[in-house]
Amino acid sequence: MLPTTQALPVLEQLDQFRVICGAAYVFVDEESLHAYAHDETEDLHFLPDVVIKPGTAEEISQIMKICNRFRIPVTPRGAGTGLSGGALPHLGGVLLSIERLNKIIHIDERNQQVTTEAGVITEVLQNELKAKGLFYPPDPSSRGTCFIGGNIAENSGGPKAVKYGVVKDYVLNLEVVLPTGEIIWTGANVLKNATGYNLTQLMVGSEGTLGIVTKIVLKLLPHPKHDLLMLVPFRSAENACAAVSAIFMAGFVPSAMEFMERDALEWVMRFVDNSIVPIEDDVKAHLLIEVDGNDPDVLMKEMEGISEVVMNFDCSEILFADDAQQKAELWKLRRRVGEAVKSHSVYKEEDTVVPRAELPMLLHGVKEIGRKYGFHSVCYGHAGDGNLHVNIIKGDLSDEAWNGSLKSGIREIFELVKSLGGTISGEHGIGLVQKEYMDIIFREKELDLMRSIKLVFDPNDILNKGKIFDSL
Amino acid sequence: MLPTTQALPVLEQLDQFRVICGAAYVFVDEESLHAYAHDETEDLHFLPDVVIKPGTAEEISQIMKICNRFRIPVTPRGAGTGLSGGALPHLGGVLLSIERLNKIIHIDERNQQVTTEAGVITEVLQNELKAKGLFYPPDPSSRGTCFIGGNIAENSGGPKAVKYGVVKDYVLNLEVVLPTGEIIWTGANVLKNATGYNLTQLMVGSEGTLGIVTKIVLKLLPHPKHDLLMLVPFRSAENACAAVSAIFMAGFVPSAMEFMERDALEWVMRFVDNSIVPIEDDVKAHLLIEVDGNDPDVLMKEMEGISEVVMNFDCSEILFADDAQQKAELWKLRRRVGEAVKSHSVYKEEDTVVPRAELPMLLHGVKEIGRKYGFHSVCYGHAGDGNLHVNIIKGDLSDEAWNGSLKSGIREIFELVKSLGGTISGEHGIGLVQKEYMDIIFREKELDLMRSIKLVFDPNDILNKGKIFDSL
Repeated sequence: MLPTTQALPVLEQLDQFRVICGAAYVFVDEESLHAYAHDETEDLHFLPDVVIKPGTAEEISQIMKICNRFRIPVTPRGAGTGLSGGALPHLGGVLLSIERLNKIIHIDERNQQVTTEAGVITEVLQNELKAKGLFYPPDPSSRGTCFIGGNIAENSGGPKAVKYGVVKDYVLNLEVVLPTGEIIWTGANVLKNATGYNLTQLMVGSEGTLGIVTKIVLKLLPHPKHDLLMLVPFRSAENACAAVSAIFMAGFVPSAMEFMERDALEWVMRFVDNSIVPIEDDVKAHLLIEVDGNDPDVLMKEMEGISEVVMNFDCSEILFADDAQQKAELWKLRRRVGEAVKSHSVYKEEDTVVPRAELPMLLHGVKEIGRKYGFHSVCYGHAGDGNLHVNIIKGDLSDEAWNGSLKSGIREIFELVKSLGGTISGEHGIGLVQKEYMDIIFREKELDLMRSIKLVFDPNDILNKGKIFDSL
Repeated sequence: MLPTTQALPVLEQLDQFRVICGAAYVFVDEESLHAYAHDETEDLHFLPDVVIKPGTAEEISQIMKICNRFRIPVTPRGAGTGLSGGALPHLGGVLLSIERLNKIIHIDERNQQVTTEAGVITEVLQNELKAKGLFYPPDPSSRGTCFIGGNIAENSGGPKAVKYGVVKDYVLNLEVVLPTGEIIWTGANVLKNATGYNLTQLMVGSEGTLGIVTKIVLKLLPHPKHDLLMLVPFRSAENACAAVSAIFMAGFVPSAMEFMERDALEWVMRFVDNSIVPIEDDVKAHLLIEVDGNDPDVLMKEMEGISEVVMNFDCSEILFADDAQQKAELWKLRRRVGEAVKSHSVYKEEDTVVPRAELPMLLHGVKEIGRKYGFHSVCYGHAGDGNLHVNIIKGDLSDEAWNGSLKSGIREIFELVKSLGGTISGEHGIGLVQKEYMDIIFREKELDLMRSIKLVFDPNDILNKGKIFDSL
């Protein structure tokens, strides 16, 4: 592939960008550049050369045509809540924010579908739908700030995934601006589709490397009318993990099944200054379990059945949430664990996922590897999916160990994950910070296929270059 | 792309194939060639040069390396129940049957997953799982004979898709032999995965053009304990279609929601010689509606609620299936409609799918186009998904019209489908017989992306060449 023209500095194109988007939406001031230099990944910062906030797919198309011609790196960005560095402009160039694409275009109640722009906040979308009795389940912890477009890029999950699936299970059709500037639609607005290759699913989870998603058609469900929530304390964290698969084997499908180590719950209660949960001294972990549906009697029976199962795993006294407020408080604790851990210390978050019955082995292994390499970890996550977030705490670890030997420890964790049939990211993506571990999961031929697909969409390798894998 | 070597006739490689698979599994006799010359698509026949029945992925790998070297066309084949000609060896060459890959490798009850070879009959797999309380929902009408590997290739659906989704929603990981002979795994055995491009989903529905699936890891559900079934007759077919979306808008999610025009039900009752359903003179269509779950009282309430909805659409007396036998008989009627129509006349089956609330418009349009072009159609299908099988009956139509102007009629139907937000195949695939209509759904750039992806996997374009789209 030969370059079509010599690469030129991005700043020489500023006037063109201003003509396309309006001068008010092209930023080169220090403050703007710094505001878009980081996401929620560790403490990483990279300055872009320019921040552009286009308002339409057509404007994005024109920007991409220029950047493709002059081989200017482009980093697309949603709300910047990512945890793997997908939105970091590590090569400088154009930071392209989709924040102005913030309209819900059409809520189609007859077909239980919604068409939305990509820069809509996930929770805003969910609330608009709920007001019409409709349900879009995937809700990452960051749902109050993250964009639906970013959720598509990362194939996000969240607590409801265990019953309702992840983002990929709801996306029917996408409008995408290709790196070369063409605007395509990937599919059709239908519940089943056997018409050519599934470009929609190829785009979901591609972390902004294959195209910039501008419009999204999602399938919806009727919103369940009721839910019940309980918090189960366990005297052994591995027992808590073992209870998870026992619940499913007993025939239950909870709408959430969250695991929190003792530290996670203690830290977050301190962080939000709310100690509604008394934690007994011998408690090592909790499961937060929700069931939902339309019939309260059925839900009550399910809660009883699940209680009977967990009793076999040496649990302590179960807390049943009494009312909407208590439920909201428990959920708030769970949702803010990540922030609490982050506020506590510099940390690295690993997004491990294994078949759910292997969770006890995973947790046991993580702690053993921690002892070997001298790091403390706080674990929590979507246990029903086998998705365990392993937060490695810097604490007293030397900078040398943190930036050096720790990588071997992470590698050992990921090798354990692989040996258990799992993989290194369940919902956070690979982005910038996990790509060095991709060789654990995929063989060279598999990575070659991915790299070649990248070049089909992006022959000059300008869009989010160096994310997921190193460039060819 | 330059050829690596001069193409040689396939027959010169027979000895090599015999060494790889054993002579007993390489067939060139007339009877074998004819047995693999057709699938269930219309009345099409194409003779392969040789039929090979390898027993392992490794054997397939070696065969593919030879075929790739000598650019021999290879047509992979499951059970040959396809309806779009995907398994037709229209270029001759090697017909590669996966029928010997027929072992269920591991039913993992702890993780509610199964690992199976691709040549297992779908219903055999479902029954083995059900015996352990596990549920794999996708069940095409051909489930008693089709292979799970073919279901992956076509992204099959079936009646349960309306509640439980299609094949793509259950596939976690695939072992695939590439056209160039490498054996890869596409993912991991986990419920959520954000680790690189989704090669698994790219493979599902790719109709045997990107690789030969040899092993499959599926996620499973606990088998629901109860179901209820009812047959609702309507005095207007469009009213029956309109009732479908009304049921969903009322908050119900049936486990099946099947539509049959009067002709469909009459023909199949004659075909199976069973007239358990008295059809009143003024009845024009039926909906077959199932609900499933674990609580019989809840299901009864759902049936009552759905009955109330359908009453608003001028339905006649509802038949509630009394017992397992009557349920089985009603399902048998629905499952065998396709065969019945086929036995009645030469026909073409179109696999239209639209957003479900647009079904009345689609049905109305199909009949109008039929009047314009002088053809009769029998329609039935998975109405809950908006998936309507339009069977165009040759009847008294001249051969000239059948092979000529009818194509314009089909094109008009598909253009209508597109204008309603739908697409030209919901579950049958494009294969050989629908590819000429792909331009209605996809623009040139979108088709170019697909063709380029094909070449990433299959640089010499030997695997199921000319299916889905014409070669580059």
